[in-house]
Amino acid sequence: MIIVMKPKARQESIERIKNLIEENGLQAHISAGHEVTIIGVIGDKARLKEHNLAIYDEVDKIVDVTESYKLANKKFHPEPTIVKVGNVTIGGGTAVIMAGPCAVENRDQLLTTALEIKKYGAHILRGGAYKPRTSPYSFQGLEEEGLSYMKEAREITGLPVVCEVTSLEAIESAVKYVDMLQIGARNMQNFYLLKEAGKTGMPVLLKRGLSATIDEWLNAAEYIIAAGNPNVVLCERGIRTFETATRNTLDISAVPVIREKSHLPIIVDPSHAAGVRAYVKSLSMAAIAAGADGLMIETHPDPSKALSDGPQSLSFDQFEDMMAALKPLVELMGKKM
Amino acid sequence: MIIVMKPKARQESIERIKNLIEENGLQAHISAGHEVTIIGVIGDKARLKEHNLAIYDEVDKIVDVTESYKLANKKFHPEPTIVKVGNVTIGGGTAVIMAGPCAVENRDQLLTTALEIKKYGAHILRGGAYKPRTSPYSFQGLEEEGLSYMKEAREITGLPVVCEVTSLEAIESAVKYVDMLQIGARNMQNFYLLKEAGKTGMPVLLKRGLSATIDEWLNAAEYIIAAGNPNVVLCERGIRTFETATRNTLDISAVPVIREKSHLPIIVDPSHAAGVRAYVKSLSMAAIAAGADGLMIETHPDPSKALSDGPQSLSFDQFEDMMAALKPLVELMGKKM
Amino acid sequence: MIIVMKPKARQESIERIKNLIEENGLQAHISAGHEVTIIGVIGDKARLKEHNLAIYDEVDKIVDVTESYKLANKKFHPEPTIVKVGNVTIGGGTAVIMAGPCAVENRDQLLTTALEIKKYGAHILRGGAYKPRTSPYSFQGLEEEGLSYMKEAREITGLPVVCEVTSLEAIESAVKYVDMLQIGARNMQNFYLLKEAGKTGMPVLLKRGLSATIDEWLNAAEYIIAAGNPNVVLCERGIRTFETATRNTLDISAVPVIREKSHLPIIVDPSHAAGVRAYVKSLSMAAIAAGADGLMIETHPDPSKALSDGPQSLSFDQFEDMMAALKPLVELMGKKM
Amino acid sequence: MIIVMKPKARQESIERIKNLIEENGLQAHISAGHEVTIIGVIGDKARLKEHNLAIYDEVDKIVDVTESYKLANKKFHPEPTIVKVGNVTIGGGTAVIMAGPCAVENRDQLLTTALEIKKYGAHILRGGAYKPRTSPYSFQGLEEEGLSYMKEAREITGLPVVCEVTSLEAIESAVKYVDMLQIGARNMQNFYLLKEAGKTGMPVLLKRGLSATIDEWLNAAEYIIAAGNPNVVLCERGIRTFETATRNTLDISAVPVIREKSHLPIIVDPSHAAGVRAYVKSLSMAAIAAGADGLMIETHPDPSKALSDGPQSLSFDQFEDMMAALKPLVELMGKKM
Repeated sequence: MIIVMKPKARQESIERIKNLIEENGLQAHISAGHEVTIIGVIGDKARLKEHNLAIYDEVDKIVDVTESYKLANKKFHPEPTIVKVGNVTIGGGTAVIMAGPCAVENRDQLLTTALEIKKYGAHILRGGAYKPRTSPYSFQGLEEEGLSYMKEAREITGLPVVCEVTSLEAIESAVKYVDMLQIGARNMQNFYLLKEAGKTGMPVLLKRGLSATIDEWLNAAEYIIAAGNPNVVLCERGIRTFETATRNTLDISAVPVIREKSHLPIIVDPSHAAGVRAYVKSLSMAAIAAGADGLMIETHPDPSKALSDGPQSLSFDQFEDMMAALKPLVELMGKKM
Repeated sequence: MIIVMKPKARQESIERIKNLIEENGLQAHISAGHEVTIIGVIGDKARLKEHNLAIYDEVDKIVDVTESYKLANKKFHPEPTIVKVGNVTIGGGTAVIMAGPCAVENRDQLLTTALEIKKYGAHILRGGAYKPRTSPYSFQGLEEEGLSYMKEAREITGLPVVCEVTSLEAIESAVKYVDMLQIGARNMQNFYLLKEAGKTGMPVLLKRGLSATIDEWLNAAEYIIAAGNPNVVLCERGIRTFETATRNTLDISAVPVIREKSHLPIIVDPSHAAGVRAYVKSLSMAAIAAGADGLMIETHPDPSKALSDGPQSLSFDQFEDMMAALKPLVELMGKKM
Repeated sequence: MIIVMKPKARQESIERIKNLIEENGLQAHISAGHEVTIIGVIGDKARLKEHNLAIYDEVDKIVDVTESYKLANKKFHPEPTIVKVGNVTIGGGTAVIMAGPCAVENRDQLLTTALEIKKYGAHILRGGAYKPRTSPYSFQGLEEEGLSYMKEAREITGLPVVCEVTSLEAIESAVKYVDMLQIGARNMQNFYLLKEAGKTGMPVLLKRGLSATIDEWLNAAEYIIAAGNPNVVLCERGIRTFETATRNTLDISAVPVIREKSHLPIIVDPSHAAGVRAYVKSLSMAAIAAGADGLMIETHPDPSKALSDGPQSLSFDQFEDMMAALKPLVELMGKKM
Repeated sequence: MIIVMKPKARQESIERIKNLIEENGLQAHISAGHEVTIIGVIGDKARLKEHNLAIYDEVDKIVDVTESYKLANKKFHPEPTIVKVGNVTIGGGTAVIMAGPCAVENRDQLLTTALEIKKYGAHILRGGAYKPRTSPYSFQGLEEEGLSYMKEAREITGLPVVCEVTSLEAIESAVKYVDMLQIGARNMQNFYLLKEAGKTGMPVLLKRGLSATIDEWLNAAEYIIAAGNPNVVLCERGIRTFETATRNTLDISAVPVIREKSHLPIIVDPSHAAGVRAYVKSLSMAAIAAGADGLMIETHPDPSKALSDGPQSLSFDQFEDMMAALKPLVELMGKKM
């Protein structure tokens, strides 16, 4: 931590902070510049957390030099994490494709989709049973009934299944049916939910919040890991910006940035990012080329009748076409699919 | 709802949509322009919700002409809502000042603060017992112990108390101790929590999400009202933008916009918006002048030792000074304080 | 300037940077923390500008502790600047009201407007002769003819006039007709134009760019002042965010932030910020209450026929009503109008 | 154009608008819904441009159904445009690589760079002679001297050259030395400059503004084409968002969106988007995989001494490595390099 003093700060203001630092068992290194004085704090800054140095007299600003996340931080854990979901591994040599409908609508829709996506090479089935919707009048999900169809789909196809959870009750139900829990974008800073998901020990797919910085996202992952669960996979799904041509703005740079800052695997969800199915294939290609560990793709037997997010869902023909295009690219990137 | 077709859409594509609309018991008004054809849908569009018209052949876009929130909408409820919190009314002729520490830290800190803010004219005591924090290593709140201090502070001062809730458990505890529940910015789209807060029937202070549009915010209010609870007060607390000179960007325009679109009261939290206490007084003045129904202000006996958000908390002297400046402005606006 | 090294940076990487700093005649203060080492640079950092320290081996990041703007910086010029435009002073004890049409459309429209705004107490007449428009097919302004009407309006009313300039040619014409040059939001980082406006020595109204940080805005002012022209007035006019209920998001916090960082006067343009005339009065009140030195308001004899920005323009009746509401507020703020 | 009336708008308000439309020689189609009435306008809406329908009594909003750009619009020009720059074609079967230093610093630096990038397969040399810099105290470019080195570099290597222009004077100089003019992000809505660049007839590389929507970007292109110059290449270079891990947020979706809305070629500049050279290779791969027509990459003989944007510049070794990685990907996409 560095404390930057205001120009011409009086010696007594500087001394007061120096003393405070030393009283807490830390060292203060003072550099008196020709315009401003800066004070470097040496030692465990957690000891200072009861003091808001930022508002001491003549302090201009505080600069953190270390990240607040530790367990999710590559600096302290340089080896990449590989997360096992059923018989699938994420973060190793496979570009993992998760696919399925936005919402589980009925048994037929889900089983049909599961069989089709398996045919074209997908590894994990996705499907929402608890749907966070902007309006209370939109379809809210089949809840436990939906989870039971997910389990049945796994039994029939052998594909592991992932489902979003939005409350403690949803977690308690989901752990009985699915292989991986998803924390959605709107709940990325629902810290209560993060801790509960952490306690289950199950693999967690953590979507980035609509307006979360990468730093906040890794701190959200830290909540799960700190609760004893290292099996976290990050999912970039677009951030909110001023641009309206797409539903969100896919932050493709998040892939190399996460690769540099964290050891956790990262996948990309181009369906929610774009909000328009015509753009999903291009963005999937971009994500794999940028080095993502996998993709999450919305597919539906009849997107024109989907109860949620139809406009961004691929038909099976479109999914087949996209998978065919991805295959040689995945190989070029030195992975398998 | 209006369906805009692509330029030169074939007659058969237009007919297919017209038929679909009519089969669902609605009327289709077709306007064939020289470049594009548009189709106006007359009737209850909810009947079409199983059809994603946006992805039918040659459809360019769908334009909604009505808002999805109804109960929170001024169009259908023109009279302003007045919310009663203990003996205080919000949305009437009083500029309601809520003040207190970001986090309840201990009994002394809270009781001291409660007495001081009462002395300078505040109406409601705020204080967090469940703290959503970016890092799992930051102070997370005293939970039920904190709530009991809030209740005690009310007994001593007579001020109603408001506290943030972050889970069903927190709601179940809070209803026993406080007068008003707060849904924080990070949980504004935690729809599960909104419904549970709605079921309590207690007054709810609904903060705007960091990247929530005003439309989404009013839809979040709709969740609470649709659960049977009309006692919702909105709180603008800054949105996330590219600007870093302040912690968030206070969207002061939200005050007149909400006034035009909704009948719900709206207050402003300049402390979280600014993140810097030097700006709190100016922003408080601006909020009242823009027509806000009240303010939420962070105060602390010793901001330099606050466990949460110290840099944006006012000392008691600063709070006194701000209240003195607000008083004539509130009167000028035709309200009392 | 502070250089933060990566964790476990080797001694030789640290030495290399220390040597580089010292070879350039500066001092390096090294603080070796338990996780990271930081290097404080003492002396004029301009001497290092040919070296990109950020990409030296094992450098994590560079933190600037001083602003790059000097002449616009309150730290080095604590007294508030007062700018004289004709017989009007901005930044002193008057809340200066600039009003007029977005675009000068014809002689009648301008003269009528000038007389009306004068009647209700405005101090300066605004009007655009060179209009930056998103589409090439929108009205682009009357250019020099428009300027001549501005001059005539000044002769008739005695009000000083301000007009936007968008090119060197426009500046060369405008200096012959108007009292103050305006640099618009889209040209805030047209550095060529800033320098040319600086050379004229005339008062300059510098609007904030749509996505400019306050730091960039003050650097833009620095260009004008560095060209020898200290007569700069800043104008906050809304920034671009995700919210679409208003045309832009008025950053009301810019008023107290500028007050803390700079000595330049700041006014607010609620018309462009809101884009909707129903919100202009509330936002004007907010701006004055936040401490702004004035306002810029769009008015038009018949907003329903304005060639530019009609929806955000006030009619004369609305302008009169707003001025009446502002008057007691301005007095309450200790200013005159 | 569609006019949406407020709920329960009176018949006389609807009639007034209907009459206005018909008086201007257009047709009005009225659809009276159970909540709101909408009015479709049939005919050339330009005839209504002197009327701000949005502020007529009881009008709720105006919805445009056609884009304001025509010449840049794929709907009216479905064939892709191919732009010829010297002997290089952009928008055809080649992934065009533009490379070079951010700023031309001296003759040696430029010639060395030109020879190196040619060796590794680049097609066009970039280099800035007029540098728009946030601070007036940063290096501003060599101006005409820099242009002369660009010309010399072309003579030696045979590579066409592109240079940013920031004023009419810069355009007048540049046309004598370079093969393509660049309009930078900060000048994307400097409409005066766009028109002047249009008049030259030379190929123009039009960078997207920091906060420009895709719609505004295509309108900026429309200015150039409407001035008689169809040779426009678009360049996505990152937009401004709340994320600070990268200098800007590369909007990779812009590639498929532009492909759908326009016939103009689009390239990507990952160097300015990322601001960090470690991310440039991943983002270059993503851009090509998304379907971009080319890349613009900053390279420098010694990035640690670059006078501008060193941290995002590749060394020659890094450039060689990136080009080797791109080659098989370009082939996989069915293009040559």
